[in-house]
Amino acid sequence: MRAVDLIDKKRRSESLSAVEIQWLIKGYLKGDIPDYQMSAFLMAVCLNGMDARETAELTMSMMREGDSIDLSEIPGVKVDKHSTGGVGDTTTLVVAPLVAACGGAVAKMSGRGLGHTGGTLDKLESIPGLSVELGIRRFIEQVKNIGIAVIGQSGNLAPADKKIYALRDVTATVSSVPLIASSIMSKKLAAGADAIVLDVKTGSGAFLETVEESRRLAKTMVEIGNHLGRKVVALLTDMNQPLGLAVGNALEMREAIEVLAGKIKGGNPLYEVCMLLGVHMLKLGGIAGDDGAARKLLEEAVKSGAGIGRLKAMVKAQDGDESYIDVDKINELCAVKARIPVCAGQKGHISSMRTARIGQAAQMLGAGRATKDDGIDPAVGLVMHKRLHDAVEANEPICTFYVNDETRVQGAKTVFLSGVTIEAAACRQNSPMVYGVVE
Amino acid sequence: MRAVDLIDKKRRSESLSAVEIQWLIKGYLKGDIPDYQMSAFLMAVCLNGMDARETAELTMSMMREGDSIDLSEIPGVKVDKHSTGGVGDTTTLVVAPLVAACGGAVAKMSGRGLGHTGGTLDKLESIPGLSVELGIRRFIEQVKNIGIAVIGQSGNLAPADKKIYALRDVTATVSSVPLIASSIMSKKLAAGADAIVLDVKTGSGAFLETVEESRRLAKTMVEIGNHLGRKVVALLTDMNQPLGLAVGNALEMREAIEVLAGKIKGGNPLYEVCMLLGVHMLKLGGIAGDDGAARKLLEEAVKSGAGIGRLKAMVKAQDGDESYIDVDKINELCAVKARIPVCAGQKGHISSMRTARIGQAAQMLGAGRATKDDGIDPAVGLVMHKRLHDAVEANEPICTFYVNDETRVQGAKTVFLSGVTIEAAACRQNSPMVYGVVE
Repeated sequence: MRAVDLIDKKRRSESLSAVEIQWLIKGYLKGDIPDYQMSAFLMAVCLNGMDARETAELTMSMMREGDSIDLSEIPGVKVDKHSTGGVGDTTTLVVAPLVAACGGAVAKMSGRGLGHTGGTLDKLESIPGLSVELGIRRFIEQVKNIGIAVIGQSGNLAPADKKIYALRDVTATVSSVPLIASSIMSKKLAAGADAIVLDVKTGSGAFLETVEESRRLAKTMVEIGNHLGRKVVALLTDMNQPLGLAVGNALEMREAIEVLAGKIKGGNPLYEVCMLLGVHMLKLGGIAGDDGAARKLLEEAVKSGAGIGRLKAMVKAQDGDESYIDVDKINELCAVKARIPVCAGQKGHISSMRTARIGQAAQMLGAGRATKDDGIDPAVGLVMHKRLHDAVEANEPICTFYVNDETRVQGAKTVFLSGVTIEAAACRQNSPMVYGVVE
Repeated sequence: MRAVDLIDKKRRSESLSAVEIQWLIKGYLKGDIPDYQMSAFLMAVCLNGMDARETAELTMSMMREGDSIDLSEIPGVKVDKHSTGGVGDTTTLVVAPLVAACGGAVAKMSGRGLGHTGGTLDKLESIPGLSVELGIRRFIEQVKNIGIAVIGQSGNLAPADKKIYALRDVTATVSSVPLIASSIMSKKLAAGADAIVLDVKTGSGAFLETVEESRRLAKTMVEIGNHLGRKVVALLTDMNQPLGLAVGNALEMREAIEVLAGKIKGGNPLYEVCMLLGVHMLKLGGIAGDDGAARKLLEEAVKSGAGIGRLKAMVKAQDGDESYIDVDKINELCAVKARIPVCAGQKGHISSMRTARIGQAAQMLGAGRATKDDGIDPAVGLVMHKRLHDAVEANEPICTFYVNDETRVQGAKTVFLSGVTIEAAACRQNSPMVYGVVE
């Protein structure tokens, strides 16, 4: 077999066989196939696509070339949850403790923020002492004991995906449904959960901006999971504005605690997306039979304090100071040198947000990384005061920047304001919070 | 500027500016842009194309990054001729001497064979002593003295094209109209001719298999040339079978001599394509005013022996033994250990030829190279006895292999026979020899 012939096949929009895909992935991982051939292949996939069978084969090839985690000693259905990445999306920090409090087993490997999106690990690490590097043994024991653990990727999961992702990042081959689907699913499948609830973000802050593309991605991932005997449900949720109001690590931690403490209630978008994710996790986990029962369990876990209790237990188990899991005390972690309002230049209505720019503004203040090696400041970021379609007066604050380094403000402000469009006329319609459920 | 953004632009089918294309070519040549980004870009160009302006900019960028040859001290219009590459295509060896004999100035840089296609330099080098590496000074002097010189590429012409071509070869990004056009034209323009006649091959032995694609390539190259003030005409000629009957270096040299000696006459496809190329070269060179006058001049150069005389003069000037430029004596160079007929398996008509396979069979016998560093055997190759649509009997020879290494026969035979389809029914129509002229 020759790599050039396989590239040519994909260039001609033909389907590759399982054997061909495996050969390509193995060869690339071993270094027999150079980057320049893989990048040409990836561009051909971006432009000519892959069918469902090829995408499943690509996923399995990437999964099989690395470790797989065996969660079988944890009793019950192990449920994982994954978001394709967004801005102000703290759902894992809310829904994982709630599902654990309802009796679910949540053994979750999360990621760090990169580019304009935040990462659960960075948010958790804003709690003093907390470790996300436990090792597999301690990870499994913790889930057995308290039903929940959230750690960084452990073991050599899907190393081919890691190598390919680094190449995609510099060759403009990131936004492709088969490549995103196989990248996510190869890692999720290797991580060992029986059931997976996917939160596919769509809109100006997501990697895929159209609902159709996102729906294709969702369907593709559900098919791959089912093909391999896992239960998978995908939600299509809106990312045309930040999901919560907070964008930043301790700030998002605080907002999550406010939801768990019952201070943020039904009707709020973050609350509602958490409930929806939780409902599907409880159903897949066999804990609730229908949506109504599942939602009732989750709401009771908020009301009773069982949810926030489970987050405290997890923080403690992971060596963090659990006293910060408190609506007042958490404010200490959000203390900054300056809070600077960013105001509307004119009266009108917010007609659109380029959500990626809002995430980027928070990153520029120090909340995120431009490259993988950058450090972050857990306290900084921004809190929105307005949502899409809200009315604003001239000079009314749209958000407040949380700042420790004032030299970063001007650049972040320019980027933030370029991401918020204000028009004189009121907008006719609100965009939905959820576009659909694929199962 | 970032390479990833330019790749993304082309991925989205947008046009690149002149500045962006220049930056990309300069950066790649300097090594600032790695192969894996260039190959992703090239694949995006293959699949999303380039408009006429971008193709011209790409050509000029590649041309400007290297040397250009100044032929101004040679009097008159310097006419070049270029074929996109085919099988059994000895036209340069016929038409260049004829045009020189008619008073044209032919200063031509040729290439070597690679893959299934032959190369003029390899054919010329079958003449003992002949050198194709003269250096620019001697090259120009020779054209001034005898009106003709055919040498290998001299000087650092279009080095970016050289680097890009090597990458295209291993990333399945060869057959793309803007990439082929810019590759050919950057070298042709740098080589300094005032007028260029292009022979764009189309069909199963060409890089582009459809007439429409070939016509697009022809138009693109003519536009680029005109844009830069050169006179360019492109012929679209058939490559659904070898042009001549001989495929191999000395064997093709012999066939060219047979045309120049008047032994192969009007009506023969090789003869006719040579005449057509020559007509346009004489017209662009200002030597003949119309097709009829030009053809008459060329036919007279055959009849009078002026054409073959000019080839002899060139061979002598380039240190070759000109006694071989003779219909009898040339046979000595075609002497091989064995001549092996390759026969039809069944009675019928030759309904199609996969011409690339016929070229590949000759290559496998030793006439061509699999990689750039392979040696070749000038005497070996094959001579066809049948043309497309001819009737054959079972066990009737379709061609004769000229063999020095019998271990190569079986593989070459399998490839050759896989390239010739015999069907019981007679074929309805002959494919044309020439599909059109683009000027």
